[in-house]
Amino acid sequence: MEAQPLTIRANPDKAIVWEHDRLYLLDQRILPTQEGYIELQTATATADAIRDMVVRGAPAIGITAAFGVVLAARSAFKASTENWRELIQDELDILAASRPTAVNLFWALSRMKQLIASMGEENPEPRLLQEAMLIHQQDIAANKAMGALGAALIEGNTSVITHCNAGALATGGYGTALGVIRSAHAANKIERVYADETRPWMQGSRLTAWELAQDSIPVTLLTDGAAASRMARGGIGWIIVGSDRIAANGDVANKIGTYNLAVAAKFHGVKVMVAAPTSTIDMSAASGADIPIEFRDSAEVLKWHGRQIAAPGVDAWNPVFDVTPAALVDAIVTERGVVLSPNSKKMAELMGV
Amino acid sequence: MEAQPLTIRANPDKAIVWEHDRLYLLDQRILPTQEGYIELQTATATADAIRDMVVRGAPAIGITAAFGVVLAARSAFKASTENWRELIQDELDILAASRPTAVNLFWALSRMKQLIASMGEENPEPRLLQEAMLIHQQDIAANKAMGALGAALIEGNTSVITHCNAGALATGGYGTALGVIRSAHAANKIERVYADETRPWMQGSRLTAWELAQDSIPVTLLTDGAAASRMARGGIGWIIVGSDRIAANGDVANKIGTYNLAVAAKFHGVKVMVAAPTSTIDMSAASGADIPIEFRDSAEVLKWHGRQIAAPGVDAWNPVFDVTPAALVDAIVTERGVVLSPNSKKMAELMGV
Repeated sequence: MEAQPLTIRANPDKAIVWEHDRLYLLDQRILPTQEGYIELQTATATADAIRDMVVRGAPAIGITAAFGVVLAARSAFKASTENWRELIQDELDILAASRPTAVNLFWALSRMKQLIASMGEENPEPRLLQEAMLIHQQDIAANKAMGALGAALIEGNTSVITHCNAGALATGGYGTALGVIRSAHAANKIERVYADETRPWMQGSRLTAWELAQDSIPVTLLTDGAAASRMARGGIGWIIVGSDRIAANGDVANKIGTYNLAVAAKFHGVKVMVAAPTSTIDMSAASGADIPIEFRDSAEVLKWHGRQIAAPGVDAWNPVFDVTPAALVDAIVTERGVVLSPNSKKMAELMGV
Repeated sequence: MEAQPLTIRANPDKAIVWEHDRLYLLDQRILPTQEGYIELQTATATADAIRDMVVRGAPAIGITAAFGVVLAARSAFKASTENWRELIQDELDILAASRPTAVNLFWALSRMKQLIASMGEENPEPRLLQEAMLIHQQDIAANKAMGALGAALIEGNTSVITHCNAGALATGGYGTALGVIRSAHAANKIERVYADETRPWMQGSRLTAWELAQDSIPVTLLTDGAAASRMARGGIGWIIVGSDRIAANGDVANKIGTYNLAVAAKFHGVKVMVAAPTSTIDMSAASGADIPIEFRDSAEVLKWHGRQIAAPGVDAWNPVFDVTPAALVDAIVTERGVVLSPNSKKMAELMGV
């Protein structure tokens, strides 16, 4: 089957596209100076794309992995209409090993595996594809629900700070933190969004600024170290961020620098909102200490586009995520409702366990 | 007079060199991947070099400006042996306008102007050169005194975090914050130095890591947003930084991100040490609110080596310094002594006013 180029324009709400029976990912490594899609025909290629951060953001990783399972099932069923369930296992494992912190990856794989377990002798692809598309659509719906719930928490007209990219690009569309910001902006509650540039991968500069500018939401970048200074000058009502995994006690793992921002927010009396679908909540992690934190190559800190920044021979400490304790979080916003001042009891109530 | 190349090797302790009757500055914009000196023959060129950050760091800016006055006096005296005092004024003003925050610039210019006011009809260059060299030597001596005083505050063997570059490169030699670290390391009190990379200009990655690595002091880089996370993991005894201006109440202006770091330190019970010579203390600034904060071009945040990082058309907020209130500072270390928990009364006692 020959490659058929996508005809749609690069667009934050089209970061994950299923077309021509293939998966296309908007290549987030080259934004905003270039716009292009990567075409994926196998689950292994999908896992590579997740690992290499062609796609990133916890919900987007989950959705992508679900489509990866469709591709895995196709090749397994082509190889053997009888043993495809066994043949698919390796590729499911490869998808699961792509990145460790975002729990939505495991949540989506688990949901796809449950469907596989319930299936008969038919070609698995159509039903798995239907399920992946449902996961994708449910994620967008969840983001819109969170947008409304989160925006309702914001009083008056205020500026906010966000970190990393928890937008359409990080999800099926609309965004978690940026979904709240989109809803609040539509309700005239957002004066300006300050976006941390978010070292080392620059998701703020490259992705969040690009995404908000396309929606004409006023956005100003700042270095991660300048956020506390900006808070000290006043006018910041909320920090609004997404999450890669939330523990049963309300501790929040998110992009490195989020914890730093939450500590500064506490010091300045600025409130902290975490917007994430319930697929991000891991009730098997009692606290943040149980969340595996991914460390990536120190070259991400030491070089920029292959150009050496730092003194040769010097190493960097490069955790990609950090954990913000529940005590620093004012609100966790999910599609099922809002948890104020989260703790284990309230999180269990939300999750109905 | 033809250019005579310097024969010395690029070296953190030789950031400012007077040789062949000219001023040479180690070009800190191109470190660590390239090492080279800029030769300066006029005060205007010296002011340009300060503005363009060929040299940076409050004490180094002061010393450079003092040598700039020597160059100004040479050309003024050459133009008129009688009216050189009048002719020099424009270049003194150009030097004063080069950067606004570091008070050492104004302190050094004021000291040179006092000498000019006391001089007779002779060629002013030799005595002004002698004074500039004295300012340079006194700065190194002050740094060594601070090194001993600061190191004495550190108990046991601990890791520390530093921000920006307050090293030999930022001073006449040895360094303020890095002077304390050098002394403490020699006394086996420093396990490892974590250096914030210090966006946007990357003084940590480019300068501090280079400088410490040359002295074989263990150094690990981290993104500015990761420092709070590193503190939460334990083992960090002190934050040790320099300053560009200290107000009469002990408020400290320093590189953007310092305030953020001090807030995080307070939250984690990590102590904050500011090492700076008394030439950094501005008793005419009652508090940090009176310190002018330089804002630089947003392109420093939006681009890297001319390459666009951020979404085109999006702006950045780029203050170069921030103010850490005295309440977040545990110790100000100067060559005249240490001020613990600084306030107006203690600062006045230190300065003998």
